[in-house]
Amino acid sequence: VRGLPEVAKGDDLAELIARVTELADGDVVVVTQKVVSKAEDRLVDLDPEVGHKPLVEAESVRVLRRRGDLVISETAHGFVCANAGVDLSNVAEGTAALLPVAPDRSARRIRDALRHHVGVEVAVVVSDTFGRPWRRGVTDVAIGCSGLKPIIDLRGTSDALGRELQVTEVAVVDELAAAAELVMGKAKGVPVAVVRGVDPSWFGEGGVVDDVVRDPSEDLFR
Amino acid sequence: VRGLPEVAKGDDLAELIARVTELADGDVVVVTQKVVSKAEDRLVDLDPEVGHKPLVEAESVRVLRRRGDLVISETAHGFVCANAGVDLSNVAEGTAALLPVAPDRSARRIRDALRHHVGVEVAVVVSDTFGRPWRRGVTDVAIGCSGLKPIIDLRGTSDALGRELQVTEVAVVDELAAAAELVMGKAKGVPVAVVRGVDPSWFGEGGVVDDVVRDPSEDLFR
Repeated sequence: VRGLPEVAKGDDLAELIARVTELADGDVVVVTQKVVSKAEDRLVDLDPEVGHKPLVEAESVRVLRRRGDLVISETAHGFVCANAGVDLSNVAEGTAALLPVAPDRSARRIRDALRHHVGVEVAVVVSDTFGRPWRRGVTDVAIGCSGLKPIIDLRGTSDALGRELQVTEVAVVDELAAAAELVMGKAKGVPVAVVRGVDPSWFGEGGVVDDVVRDPSEDLFR
Repeated sequence: VRGLPEVAKGDDLAELIARVTELADGDVVVVTQKVVSKAEDRLVDLDPEVGHKPLVEAESVRVLRRRGDLVISETAHGFVCANAGVDLSNVAEGTAALLPVAPDRSARRIRDALRHHVGVEVAVVVSDTFGRPWRRGVTDVAIGCSGLKPIIDLRGTSDALGRELQVTEVAVVDELAAAAELVMGKAKGVPVAVVRGVDPSWFGEGGVVDDVVRDPSEDLFR
């Protein structure tokens, strides 16, 4: 989706999106965390003396690893990521963007507003860029969603040869975020993408924090 | 890509793909590990007495975690995944599929053969389904590629506001694998997908094992 203006505090993202693109029922609208945080006024001024590090500590509920300036920590939502999601790119100098307080709710608000403004029934994914252990490079994952089952459960279904599937819960919400990143890039000022033609059975209720964040009790790496 | 026959040992995958789809220069052809392993005869018969566990041990160079039947280990390629990539789905009963010995080479062979058979210059990605720590559900990632820079380095480039980017190396090869999974599914007998319209600057040389696998010395979780 091209042509979106710079987003500022209080902007109605859905209205801005609806103005520059034609949406249809069944579309998945992927919106980057950055513009959601801007619209929700999650920008904070940095004290030039101390920089963004106190923010990282404040946004972290548990630190998993530190190396040099890098902190891998868990946020209040349960996301494990670098610098607790505190981000200095694509925001004004001297400012940092924090993650939305409740990104699933952010997605629902955009979805509801799109229904209201345009009369379309879409799903919305809020995406962010996370690193991974063991693999170099970052990819986009979902931090919030609405109107979508984030994980499609194939348990009990059969493979193409009729054998019961072993690996059975597919995080389609993260694959949608990754697919959207391919056309959004990191620096092109394209913070919204539309994925068309997804399997209609994926629509439904669910959230990233409830359904994708792994409970620490069943997590082998926390 | 629909209409691919069951793949068997020794099959020329490129020839099978070329027969059922029209490829163009600049396409990215994503092929699942399963059919590559079948074509490369990486299927092994299971001893019904002991099952697949000895295979998992043999394919592992280091075990990171065990819980019940689940083993998270590192393969000889350096991939960290469940059961060392030993897979029982979509293969005949009593059989397991191992990962290709050199998946980047597998990708190159398919790419070279597509150039030979069809005269097209495409990139090829071999994908597999991995779990993630901290997040539920699986997603597809790349285990091999050819003709593609697996990680696009944006270091030194600027964001949309002219500030130097912080998060700068994007694993597009994994995002391409994830995007392809959205149309392939797990049980639909669709082991090949074509991604069209990717940024031409992403074409080039590189491999997943060399470029994406994180060196243990810089890995905070190994």
